[in-house]
Amino acid sequence: MSASLHAELLQEINSWTLVDPHTHINPLAPASTNFVDLLGYHYYTELAHSAGMPRARIEEPGIDPKEKVRRLVLEGLPHLDNTAQLAWLLEICDKLLGLPIERLEASNWEQVYDRALEVMAAPDWAQQVLDRSRLSAVFLTNDFDDPLQGFDTRTYIPCLRTDDLVFNLWQPSVQQRLRRVAGREPTSPARLREILDGRFAFFTERGARACAISLPPDFTPHRIPDAVAQSALDELWTHGPQSGRDARQNLAAWVFWNLTELCQAYRLPFDLMIGVRRQVYPGGVFQGQDLYDSRVSLIQYAPLWNAFPKVRFPVSVLASVTNQELVDYAWIFPNVIPHGHWWYSNTPSFVRRDLEARLEAVPRNKLIGYYSDMYKLEFGLPKFSMYRRILAGLLAERYVIERGWTNDRALELAKDILVRNVQRVFGEAATD
Amino acid sequence: MSASLHAELLQEINSWTLVDPHTHINPLAPASTNFVDLLGYHYYTELAHSAGMPRARIEEPGIDPKEKVRRLVLEGLPHLDNTAQLAWLLEICDKLLGLPIERLEASNWEQVYDRALEVMAAPDWAQQVLDRSRLSAVFLTNDFDDPLQGFDTRTYIPCLRTDDLVFNLWQPSVQQRLRRVAGREPTSPARLREILDGRFAFFTERGARACAISLPPDFTPHRIPDAVAQSALDELWTHGPQSGRDARQNLAAWVFWNLTELCQAYRLPFDLMIGVRRQVYPGGVFQGQDLYDSRVSLIQYAPLWNAFPKVRFPVSVLASVTNQELVDYAWIFPNVIPHGHWWYSNTPSFVRRDLEARLEAVPRNKLIGYYSDMYKLEFGLPKFSMYRRILAGLLAERYVIERGWTNDRALELAKDILVRNVQRVFGEAATD
Amino acid sequence: MSASLHAELLQEINSWTLVDPHTHINPLAPASTNFVDLLGYHYYTELAHSAGMPRARIEEPGIDPKEKVRRLVLEGLPHLDNTAQLAWLLEICDKLLGLPIERLEASNWEQVYDRALEVMAAPDWAQQVLDRSRLSAVFLTNDFDDPLQGFDTRTYIPCLRTDDLVFNLWQPSVQQRLRRVAGREPTSPARLREILDGRFAFFTERGARACAISLPPDFTPHRIPDAVAQSALDELWTHGPQSGRDARQNLAAWVFWNLTELCQAYRLPFDLMIGVRRQVYPGGVFQGQDLYDSRVSLIQYAPLWNAFPKVRFPVSVLASVTNQELVDYAWIFPNVIPHGHWWYSNTPSFVRRDLEARLEAVPRNKLIGYYSDMYKLEFGLPKFSMYRRILAGLLAERYVIERGWTNDRALELAKDILVRNVQRVFGEAATD
Repeated sequence: MSASLHAELLQEINSWTLVDPHTHINPLAPASTNFVDLLGYHYYTELAHSAGMPRARIEEPGIDPKEKVRRLVLEGLPHLDNTAQLAWLLEICDKLLGLPIERLEASNWEQVYDRALEVMAAPDWAQQVLDRSRLSAVFLTNDFDDPLQGFDTRTYIPCLRTDDLVFNLWQPSVQQRLRRVAGREPTSPARLREILDGRFAFFTERGARACAISLPPDFTPHRIPDAVAQSALDELWTHGPQSGRDARQNLAAWVFWNLTELCQAYRLPFDLMIGVRRQVYPGGVFQGQDLYDSRVSLIQYAPLWNAFPKVRFPVSVLASVTNQELVDYAWIFPNVIPHGHWWYSNTPSFVRRDLEARLEAVPRNKLIGYYSDMYKLEFGLPKFSMYRRILAGLLAERYVIERGWTNDRALELAKDILVRNVQRVFGEAATD
Repeated sequence: MSASLHAELLQEINSWTLVDPHTHINPLAPASTNFVDLLGYHYYTELAHSAGMPRARIEEPGIDPKEKVRRLVLEGLPHLDNTAQLAWLLEICDKLLGLPIERLEASNWEQVYDRALEVMAAPDWAQQVLDRSRLSAVFLTNDFDDPLQGFDTRTYIPCLRTDDLVFNLWQPSVQQRLRRVAGREPTSPARLREILDGRFAFFTERGARACAISLPPDFTPHRIPDAVAQSALDELWTHGPQSGRDARQNLAAWVFWNLTELCQAYRLPFDLMIGVRRQVYPGGVFQGQDLYDSRVSLIQYAPLWNAFPKVRFPVSVLASVTNQELVDYAWIFPNVIPHGHWWYSNTPSFVRRDLEARLEAVPRNKLIGYYSDMYKLEFGLPKFSMYRRILAGLLAERYVIERGWTNDRALELAKDILVRNVQRVFGEAATD
Repeated sequence: MSASLHAELLQEINSWTLVDPHTHINPLAPASTNFVDLLGYHYYTELAHSAGMPRARIEEPGIDPKEKVRRLVLEGLPHLDNTAQLAWLLEICDKLLGLPIERLEASNWEQVYDRALEVMAAPDWAQQVLDRSRLSAVFLTNDFDDPLQGFDTRTYIPCLRTDDLVFNLWQPSVQQRLRRVAGREPTSPARLREILDGRFAFFTERGARACAISLPPDFTPHRIPDAVAQSALDELWTHGPQSGRDARQNLAAWVFWNLTELCQAYRLPFDLMIGVRRQVYPGGVFQGQDLYDSRVSLIQYAPLWNAFPKVRFPVSVLASVTNQELVDYAWIFPNVIPHGHWWYSNTPSFVRRDLEARLEAVPRNKLIGYYSDMYKLEFGLPKFSMYRRILAGLLAERYVIERGWTNDRALELAKDILVRNVQRVFGEAATD
């Protein structure tokens, strides 16, 4: 592949303003204020821990931010510079902090630390980051009881995250939050449905454009009769965390199915993030404890996709081994939409092979290219940058060179994937 | 890789005349008579449906062929031009209709439609297509009660397809067909075996060169005693479609095992196409409803391959995730033969990676490169063309450049894969 | 990628002296004495068998070595020259026998055979091979009752292989060997633990640097109470090979868990080789009967890795489909260390894709690049050579070209992977 062709395509793609359709940004503190907000990202703490740093060195209570950065730089980073994740951090140093360093190390980390403090202190830092990242808006991940106040929902687009409602309703803390936000006890399926409906009304009134959930590999959606849900609720209110496995699973399936019905009623896409197993490594650092069992199949979701043809399901899979199923279910089901490259599959070689398989077999109006999954705005730039390089490479090789497409035609395809399909799937609010 | 090296190899490979070892061609109407026969291929209707066209627009009863083409071109195709499948169609327009268009669209579809009518009206169109595709013969997919009459079995080679016998014997319509063709009731295992034997005799007398079946991911071949089969048959004749799951499964396993014994007796290869789950999406268009569960293992077939060392088993797998098992079972079992790139794995990136893994670890006399799986002859050309490009690329890169082979030596390997092994495995009838 | 860049990196990498961290070398007869020792490697006999040679032609009792070579060359090898495995053999002919042939065939096999006899007769042949292969030491695979005598354990490093202890304790022959080496009956868990402890003491005193085991896909480590182990042992001594499945499985899990405790006590890494199913094809040639079921997940090992944070676990997976899990479990668990490219995944395309995924996401101090798994020293050269070419290619493309690293920086990464991490993980004895 010609390097200049790749560069030409990339230059044009880089000029587009995008919406990031899935992040964990806190809209009240969207950008970093200190370099520790970057280096404290779980991608670095968990890799440093995996490379040998004791958890206590990383997560010492009350540790000074600068000391934490020092430790991670000196004890963790020397082992990580081969990783794609560290390349993201160096690109942030270069493009956002103005420090094009080769390595983050003893000789320069204090300079980086101080520069970060300085530039992040600018009152418009978050907006600066968005502008330089060419992001006009980002989707959030909001708890069901989030007040959704204090921010511009055109830039920070609410998304109703429903893991707690489906899987954690047996936890007293979740029940309490539910009571607080709903003002009543969900003692019956009808009541619970009303409460859920209330949440959808609240969220969509405040500009929510998606409902989302992450799902364990053994979850299989199916319709649960209200009578069964009633028994499960009875057990839940009586035994709480001691409720039996059946009761919990029945209630989870019932809530999930009802959420889908509400997605249909409120015309919200339902983001399914399939395959994560929580707390596989309880000894891990914060957010560095989850893994997966790759033995999952999208056939588990066929009953759901058959039952709700009008609901759009942007689907993410955790392991690349499920990518071909995602391609093929999206090739057949109109309502299945491949969505980005999630978490453990968000490293270059998996992105490349998974994207190539999607490009060659899924209709172009159904491919939502990428989301950052970030917690702080600074990561949008290097993550989208990685994706755009890979996309431009595939367009050059597979379309311009092999199929003889013009650059313009290849760029139109890229625009569908990066810009238009986010708008098509998530609605007008996704327009910048 | 040098582009000229690739072109040199490809030119030579393109000059060879091939036999296509698996198609769904109707020998009484092998080629298309109207462009709708091409655009109505399920690869286009299902992708158009997935891209948003309602099934009713595509499959409206009694719809005029030209109107159906118009709708698909205007409403479906704009979303599909990134796909490998659409590239096949454009290559047909170029190489068989003489219309080298960049896109099939509003401005040119009527010209294409008319040209197709014109050229397809030639009385020797099917032979023209075979000649230009460099195909001397194609294997068919014949129902067990196919009369196998009215065509030249040297060009259209019969293949006994046995899905109905194994999985659908509980359906009254299949029982009726069986009675009609056999002239008696298969009330006992012995009787049923006689009937099956009769079918093998009939097929092989008429030039059949393979027995074939597609199998769901949870099928595990094993020997069933006749007494158990008798119980299953008793239940079948009493309850028909209401027969229990056990009876149906036992009968399926019994029939499958007996078919394999007949393959041995009649020296027919048994094509196993492993992994499909039927009707996963009942709302899909015709032939666009099947998908799969990729959690399948070839270890399920070890008892079969151990029990029948003399039967050759050309094996296709539906998902690329099973390709390494296919490579490795073929590396160990003399009777396991990797066979083409089936259906959802027949897009360029999967073909490339699966083929590369086969080339580097399976004896060259066991690799059957490709089959088209086509319903109309026109698709042989672009499908084999895609495969040959990929094969030539791998030969150039991995053998000529990396191992220093001469072009001639690399081409001899290609000839095994594309020409000789079809003859070796499927017998003299496969010779042109 | 520039060919000269690749060659520059490779030249430097080729100059390093390595330790091979997993082989099946017999230290009393480490190198070949006859070409049949090379061509009799199961990689060739099983492929020749798969290509059509009857087992009786290959394994005829009492067959003359020269006749066996003649048969394999004439009847088997013509079908195998496309394979990576045969490329290893030709590289041995070139680099160790001084015969750079293109093919091993009728015209030259006797010359090769005779040359092999000649050079292998040199009294220092094994050392010559080690030197030309740039190997300073190789790890062994020693049975639990190996006397570990008669060789230099600095060059031939003992490794306690424990498959028999975990899975075959119900076999009378294994019980006998255990009694012989321990001088007493393991009638109770306490006694058995003492015996195992004795083996660890014996092995570590004689320089052992690892404990190792290969595991079937359905094995799931878990702690078994001694009382349960006692019942299992009782059944074992009473019924021997007729012991029930539960007793065997409980005992296997108990022994495995106790071996891990001993690895902790004796600070030995525990090599886990995950996924093999033995004797899938009983009709195969010697060592050519094992395959696998790729439906395995590393989540099965999470309880083990959580329970033993201080034990280092170099992990090999048999199928590439498990490689992403290996990457991700190593990314999260400090004690999980990706280890080489095992058996069916040791062909170029799988090595390349698996290595690329590891390089981009696993800390560099945790990657143990490669081991040869060889039975005769001659195979170290071509196998490591294959790996080094692939590694140099990825370094050139992904680090020097894409990330702008200097050659030196890329080479430092390679040195971690090939040299330093073997020392780090397996201790000082691994130093040359």
